Amino acid sequence: MDTITQAKKAAGEKAASLVQPGMLVGLGTGSTAYWAIERLGAMVKEGLHIQAVATSVASEKQARELGIPITSFSEIQQLDIDIDGADEISEDFQLIKGGGGSLLREKIVALASRRRVIVADERKYVKTLGKFPLPLEIVPFGWELVFKTLQSLKGVPTLRTREDKPYITDNSNYIIDCAFGTIQNPEQLHQQLKAIPGIVETGLFINLKPTVIIAYENGDVKVV
Amino acid sequence: MDTITQAKKAAGEKAASLVQPGMLVGLGTGSTAYWAIERLGAMVKEGLHIQAVATSVASEKQARELGIPITSFSEIQQLDIDIDGADEISEDFQLIKGGGGSLLREKIVALASRRRVIVADERKYVKTLGKFPLPLEIVPFGWELVFKTLQSLKGVPTLRTREDKPYITDNSNYIIDCAFGTIQNPEQLHQQLKAIPGIVETGLFINLKPTVIIAYENGDVKVV
Repeated sequence: MDTITQAKKAAGEKAASLVQPGMLVGLGTGSTAYWAIERLGAMVKEGLHIQAVATSVASEKQARELGIPITSFSEIQQLDIDIDGADEISEDFQLIKGGGGSLLREKIVALASRRRVIVADERKYVKTLGKFPLPLEIVPFGWELVFKTLQSLKGVPTLRTREDKPYITDNSNYIIDCAFGTIQNPEQLHQQLKAIPGIVETGLFINLKPTVIIAYENGDVKVV
Repeated sequence: MDTITQAKKAAGEKAASLVQPGMLVGLGTGSTAYWAIERLGAMVKEGLHIQAVATSVASEKQARELGIPITSFSEIQQLDIDIDGADEISEDFQLIKGGGGSLLREKIVALASRRRVIVADERKYVKTLGKFPLPLEIVPFGWELVFKTLQSLKGVPTLRTREDKPYITDNSNYIIDCAFGTIQNPEQLHQQLKAIPGIVETGLFINLKPTVIIAYENGDVKVV
């Protein structure tokens, strides 16, 4: 295991340590959230009672295999804690998410949680958002119009593909990754994008006031 | 055929008469748009050259069976005219749509059209919007949270069902029909609803400046 993977593992485990008995837990998606879920699985085996909602089919599969009880929003109304990764975290704790393709479910789960914990490696902790192209979940019908609208907003959109076909989200949608350069006003951009019919959700996670845990290349883990 | 059906047929045919040779045409969904598509099919058989984009699987099927050439937004960027119905039309031409379940595609097509023609019977032409519960296209994951959020906004939401299961849109989503009472400010309500993660699109069609053709119970058809 290389140094950064070790740090991600440590950050994920640090996040898992915030989970208390009886909590309802949101399980994120991605390479750092993975380690949080692994640790939670071990804690459940040691007798911890929790229930979880997963933000992706992949995370749900991982959790089930580890024996973490999975529930859904038909059973519960709110989560106690949500542990997830991010593709970029700005100094004022605004986030870009969606690199893993699960931004819509991740946002629904994040907003349903009383507390949000974001785990990421130091490369994702930036001064201002925008180096990472913004993922947008879009409806397949008429996606070409959304693509052109994004160009007219000075974005540089790319339809995400997998094996030369459009990438399909867990919600049967497409994803466009759209570079906007430095994002000075994430809230304004988010609202502008949400107003476009066909854009289901944006990867801008605004004003969520998360607890942020950063894994450093040298192996350190810090709550910032 | 009863009087109102005759009037709907006449209104649909009136709308179809606005289509000129060579036009790119949006085909709506519903009981009045149906007659416009029927008439366009007859015009195509008589030699009219058009291409069309359909707002639903049902309308596309109808058009194909009639021999109307179907295209898509991968081929074209803009439509010349869109002919569609509405569930409510206010005196200032704001619309509620989505009773037929195709609001998302209908909105994408409407916004891609240079001219919009709305055909409806007189029962749908109202002073102020809101008697017809507002259709909202929503993501299945976490729909229960959207339901509760709508209640907190003083809406009365109902999950649309078909044969005791959630109704599924052409885009693999659910529909909630939400009564808000009289809608004094459709634009504000639309923006408020669009901000909720999980709501893909609302049935409020705002500021589209349509040409409105009304079919009256007495058989009259008027462009209002």
